[in-house]
Amino acid sequence: MPTITFLPEGLACEVEAGTTVQDAAERCGAVIPFPCACKGACAKCLVRVERGRLDFADNGKLSGDLRRQGFVLACRSSVTEDVDILVPSSVGSEAGQFSDALSRMDVDEALFPQAADIKPLASRDRITVAPAEPLDGLGDYDRLAHALREQIHAMSADLPLDLLRRLPDTLRENGGSVFIWHAEEGGVSRIVDIASEMPGVEYGVAVDIGTTTVAMQLVDMSRAMVVDTVTLYNAQIDKGTDIISRITYAKNHDRIREMRELVLSTVNNGIAELCSRNGGIRADEIRNMTVAGNTTMVHLFMGIRPEYIRLEPYTPAVMKPPLYRACALGVGVNPNALVWIAPNVGSYVGGDITSGILCTDFAKGSEEVCLFIDIGTNGEIVLGNGDFLLGCACSAGPAFEGGGIERGMRASAGAIERVEVDRESGECRCFVIGGGVPEGICGSGLISLMAQLLDAGIIDQRGKLDRSGRYAPVTVVGKTARYIMTPPSEDSVGVYLTEHDIDNFIRAKAAIFSACVTLLKSVDMSFGAIDKFYIAGGFGRYIDIDDAQTLGLLPCLDCGRFLYIGNSSLAGAFMSLVSERHREKVSELANKITYVDLSSEAGYMDEYVAAMFLPHTDMSMFRGKESGVRAC
Amino acid sequence: MPTITFLPEGLACEVEAGTTVQDAAERCGAVIPFPCACKGACAKCLVRVERGRLDFADNGKLSGDLRRQGFVLACRSSVTEDVDILVPSSVGSEAGQFSDALSRMDVDEALFPQAADIKPLASRDRITVAPAEPLDGLGDYDRLAHALREQIHAMSADLPLDLLRRLPDTLRENGGSVFIWHAEEGGVSRIVDIASEMPGVEYGVAVDIGTTTVAMQLVDMSRAMVVDTVTLYNAQIDKGTDIISRITYAKNHDRIREMRELVLSTVNNGIAELCSRNGGIRADEIRNMTVAGNTTMVHLFMGIRPEYIRLEPYTPAVMKPPLYRACALGVGVNPNALVWIAPNVGSYVGGDITSGILCTDFAKGSEEVCLFIDIGTNGEIVLGNGDFLLGCACSAGPAFEGGGIERGMRASAGAIERVEVDRESGECRCFVIGGGVPEGICGSGLISLMAQLLDAGIIDQRGKLDRSGRYAPVTVVGKTARYIMTPPSEDSVGVYLTEHDIDNFIRAKAAIFSACVTLLKSVDMSFGAIDKFYIAGGFGRYIDIDDAQTLGLLPCLDCGRFLYIGNSSLAGAFMSLVSERHREKVSELANKITYVDLSSEAGYMDEYVAAMFLPHTDMSMFRGKESGVRAC
Repeated sequence: MPTITFLPEGLACEVEAGTTVQDAAERCGAVIPFPCACKGACAKCLVRVERGRLDFADNGKLSGDLRRQGFVLACRSSVTEDVDILVPSSVGSEAGQFSDALSRMDVDEALFPQAADIKPLASRDRITVAPAEPLDGLGDYDRLAHALREQIHAMSADLPLDLLRRLPDTLRENGGSVFIWHAEEGGVSRIVDIASEMPGVEYGVAVDIGTTTVAMQLVDMSRAMVVDTVTLYNAQIDKGTDIISRITYAKNHDRIREMRELVLSTVNNGIAELCSRNGGIRADEIRNMTVAGNTTMVHLFMGIRPEYIRLEPYTPAVMKPPLYRACALGVGVNPNALVWIAPNVGSYVGGDITSGILCTDFAKGSEEVCLFIDIGTNGEIVLGNGDFLLGCACSAGPAFEGGGIERGMRASAGAIERVEVDRESGECRCFVIGGGVPEGICGSGLISLMAQLLDAGIIDQRGKLDRSGRYAPVTVVGKTARYIMTPPSEDSVGVYLTEHDIDNFIRAKAAIFSACVTLLKSVDMSFGAIDKFYIAGGFGRYIDIDDAQTLGLLPCLDCGRFLYIGNSSLAGAFMSLVSERHREKVSELANKITYVDLSSEAGYMDEYVAAMFLPHTDMSMFRGKESGVRAC
Repeated sequence: MPTITFLPEGLACEVEAGTTVQDAAERCGAVIPFPCACKGACAKCLVRVERGRLDFADNGKLSGDLRRQGFVLACRSSVTEDVDILVPSSVGSEAGQFSDALSRMDVDEALFPQAADIKPLASRDRITVAPAEPLDGLGDYDRLAHALREQIHAMSADLPLDLLRRLPDTLRENGGSVFIWHAEEGGVSRIVDIASEMPGVEYGVAVDIGTTTVAMQLVDMSRAMVVDTVTLYNAQIDKGTDIISRITYAKNHDRIREMRELVLSTVNNGIAELCSRNGGIRADEIRNMTVAGNTTMVHLFMGIRPEYIRLEPYTPAVMKPPLYRACALGVGVNPNALVWIAPNVGSYVGGDITSGILCTDFAKGSEEVCLFIDIGTNGEIVLGNGDFLLGCACSAGPAFEGGGIERGMRASAGAIERVEVDRESGECRCFVIGGGVPEGICGSGLISLMAQLLDAGIIDQRGKLDRSGRYAPVTVVGKTARYIMTPPSEDSVGVYLTEHDIDNFIRAKAAIFSACVTLLKSVDMSFGAIDKFYIAGGFGRYIDIDDAQTLGLLPCLDCGRFLYIGNSSLAGAFMSLVSERHREKVSELANKITYVDLSSEAGYMDEYVAAMFLPHTDMSMFRGKESGVRAC
């Protein structure tokens, strides 16, 4: 019998020839997400063959690029010979970093930069500087300025001092023929680098600064291709798990500097890692950098006091950050690189969202109504089409990230990420990230569990557990009932879910759902009007839509209208890195979004209260569910 | 009898009431320069009364400002009571720094900035930034940019990151009313500082970076007044005494960095000294800075390779340096200050000259023909009037600074700076800086000695000493004769002048004189055409014109045509610091100067050889001297 080994954990087992990878994974305890239940539709169950081969029934869902890199869909593959396959790890693996080869394919390719769009902020030109003549009264700098005027129509130049220092030698190395990297800004040519020789591969870095994780892509600029991706925990995480706690922590100059240094260390470690593991790229070969992050993260990255974001009238210091050079910001790329930072729209709708919606049809300006949602501690929502855009944010609390849940944890090794509840006994089977003994439950596990408990009638619409004694896992401790997933042992208190946890979850989902409803009502629309419902964010990827609908987290739309777009903030940062049109598009979209403050919307509290049931007080909104028919 | 005490040395003596300060100084051994031989004409013998009073016959040569500060002319004062007077020390006192209250008065007041001209590069404006409104979609930065556009017509802003960091608090401290320091450059408002409160005194610093000394003035910007002056030795001095040796030393990146750090340390020490001794001024209160220096000094200050200055075709990296911020240059003023550096004209005619000629009638553009000469290791000469300007440089060698002279030294304590030679015996009496035992002879002493030896016939036209035995101080050692000023003792070899020294001196004066002649001939002029002959530089101040004419260093013009303008480079830097018109004027003058390369001028070598006699082979040029009539 052939042996299949799942990397990086090295979980291996012998299976019959012809066994599907899904079955083999289950047998080994390897975790592969199958959101579309192995219909081959979502293309989320990517694995890469490292040794040997799999029998893969290609249905065309996989791009040629990924095929060539050895990726297959696990759900459409079966084992025929000894094979090692790599399962790209989920967000926040033990090591704190993972490769994210998937993120590109989440986005509609039509939205990606086309050849004609490829133009980094600092692009390369070749100019010829006239040789020095005796007593011509011109210094090297004058002759450069003249060449810039004549050859690339730059009326004035912003030449950093270190480049002026290099200019005399550079001009003389190759008879005055020089390559120049520069960005035009308001008639000024802002010069990033000069060189007398044609450089090798040119690099850029796209960065998504999340509250929890920082994801970075190294990009080959000439081919506009992602070379490598790295994700690290944001080192600020010890100072607070959510935005508000970060703002509160950064209350004085020293703390602001500390927070800036923490996020900078994360970004710079990531860049160093990308450089070292791709053949020792030098920092100064990275001449372009884009950053997307929420408003608070952008402020802290720039070292700006974030306090006024949360104080009335909620005014950020900066919406569209000016272009600062890397050396001013302190990032470890070419010190003269001009760092482009995606514009914010308001206190809680930041550059991660404006960057993210580049991955949606908003960027096309089509007539179709779309709703974009980035679910995390904060839920950010954008609604609109080519005619209008509304944006808002709601505080979901940390429940989706395992916070505020007694046995909650982030989606890392040891977390229960999916369960199967037996409707009769109420007992559950847990699927644990990385296999092994469950240590807690993460957001996707919570949704999975809650949906099945509700489905089985073990919890009611108000989120109360069945205390009748019919279900063995339900026990009552003091005044609160709890559902036991794994019993306590000598080493562990076990993993369980309390009614308090359920309340927290309900508040979180109610915040998000009611925000969507309020936004829709503000333009006199209902969910039925939505053609495309985009789910962004690392967490979003792991939400089972069916479960989320069961719980009233997502509306009961046809399954085909939901589109996972993964880390759209990073994808948008990548697109902005390589494409001038996309940078312009982000600004255009940011200007177009009307920021809605939910706390001042009259109906929001009513909607919130109405959503504090499972799935909702207005069951008509979840008719499909009520009837027991699964929409997805 | 009253006691007079000369400070800072503390030399004191009792004198009869009515004794002139000149006599008292001579008795005490205190050195006060009397270039005009106590005619009260040159106003060089300034002293300041620190305690008690002097009987001063004011002849109106002293400005009211200086009078109020307690200055009098020593040559027109006599002692009536106990009195302490401060003698401003000469260039390069022992401590390496001196106060230079004199430099202002050297310049024709009509050339100084008038009230209407006063406009620093970064000038202060008050703007009102609209308060933040809920959901107005504007960050603090946007509202600032809007106010800049509306209120000071700045189409775009260059706001350093640290100011953006301070912006949120600053806007909220005083209801959006802020002071802003900014310079307009090509439509961009380059912001230097923001504050919510009206600041106290505002400061600027004007710097003259000389090859030997760096002179700096702290300026009260609101009153456009010099508060204090400091002069330090350029810390690069150990790496070579002249420009060429500095260029040669700075041959690689490490050496360039080292040279930059050396001059920066000098500048920053000077600024720190100015700040600390004027009531603890903070560096960030200094928001304007101007720098003037020769082309090589400017390159080294900026950290730019100077090598191409001395390699054909002698092209500096930069003629008009762009405006860099203090933090980029590394100078210890407000880090965002834009440092204005006076433009160079060629490899050896630099910003010290373009800045210096602000102190001449060139700045008026009048019809009068002027010649400006800055005598030092390099002699820089500018000739012209409102219609044309020619500039050139010649290498005089270090003789005027005591170099290449066996017992030569710089003009510091212990240097013989003037002599009186008895025409009969040939014996000399030496006047020593700071009194005490002579240790060597400085440039002005050399000129004084040479002129008197020539006058007395102790040296001939070729610079050979009279070996007839008639003059006891002349001895012959080996093949060379020498003139003994102070005989050897147990501790010292004595101070003497050899025929080699005389040759070196003759070469130096010939270089300068022939450069002037060549420049004049290139426009078909002779010395007679010169209406004003400006002598600049710290050394120039101590040249006795009569002696210099005797030796053929200066032409035989009427004494009234010579004008000492002291450290005109520093004075020009000061004027550029406070006045927009003067900054524009410097650029205009720099553009107007045609740089003449003497080495490619056909007649220069002939002129040089012709000037290798004392005073010259063409005695008709020195007819007044020949006849023994003193012109001055």
